Amino acid sequence: MSTKELTPSATVSVFTPEQLLTHWQGHRRLTRRMIEAFPEDKLFTYSIGGMRPFAVLVYEFLGMGVPSLKGTATGQWQKWAEAEQVNTKAELLALWDDATTQINELWPTVPAHRWQEEDVAFGQWPGTGISLMCYVIDNEIHHRGQAYVYLRSLGIEPPAFWDRQ
Amino acid sequence: MSTKELTPSATVSVFTPEQLLTHWQGHRRLTRRMIEAFPEDKLFTYSIGGMRPFAVLVYEFLGMGVPSLKGTATGQWQKWAEAEQVNTKAELLALWDDATTQINELWPTVPAHRWQEEDVAFGQWPGTGISLMCYVIDNEIHHRGQAYVYLRSLGIEPPAFWDRQ
Repeated sequence: MSTKELTPSATVSVFTPEQLLTHWQGHRRLTRRMIEAFPEDKLFTYSIGGMRPFAVLVYEFLGMGVPSLKGTATGQWQKWAEAEQVNTKAELLALWDDATTQINELWPTVPAHRWQEEDVAFGQWPGTGISLMCYVIDNEIHHRGQAYVYLRSLGIEPPAFWDRQ
Repeated sequence: MSTKELTPSATVSVFTPEQLLTHWQGHRRLTRRMIEAFPEDKLFTYSIGGMRPFAVLVYEFLGMGVPSLKGTATGQWQKWAEAEQVNTKAELLALWDDATTQINELWPTVPAHRWQEEDVAFGQWPGTGISLMCYVIDNEIHHRGQAYVYLRSLGIEPPAFWDRQ
């Protein structure tokens, strides 16, 4: 690790890298519970107002998560693509759990200076590492909020938003 | 400002306080555009699955935002309460804009050490300043995502999620 990577920011930290990982994985646990809460068929088909079914939104989360983290860690960007598509809730949960493991393994490999370094994610979207990671997390919260309406309109009580354990 | 407040975190910052404020106000601009996008009556009445109308969710955002920031800045917590209720979109936007100004004024008064200091928000919710502020922002993203479904089901194109200008 270079000296640059060990130098604390000149300004005070509000979030350490470890805290951000914990925060994201907490949100990811809630998203996993949302996948579990959907009836098998509704997960892949149910829509309101022409919006995408929840499984399709989850493909987007998967397509963004690990690839964004790999690019932030290495500066090498693969071509942007959504995750592989599956046919059952069990397969979707398996993709989710695999991503969980990969995120935990990749996170400590991000050089500290990369969080504030400008790059062009996937050759398309300019920004710092932290701005990209916030976009990934915010996008998951945003579309998962949409899925709360899907569940409520199906008469199903969604998992509590505040519970991230 | 005490020496403690000027000491950078021992770990590397992924987010400076100024960046977090910019991030939040970007989300708040998007929430403002969502308020504007609703038809006047639907803003206060429209619901899917028994969920709260968007104006009621906005009251929650307003009730959490400035009061959470005041408590983080001062360590003094007022009693938890939602924002005052209004009858028109124009009045709701005025409350929103007033909060925007207050947030910009209060933010620089938060002593740096408070972001990582444990406290009990509103005498009820334990956590650090940063964990509280993340909850406030995430809650806004979550419920605003719900309102995207309301608008789509009304046949109205919502503002772009990625645009925070």
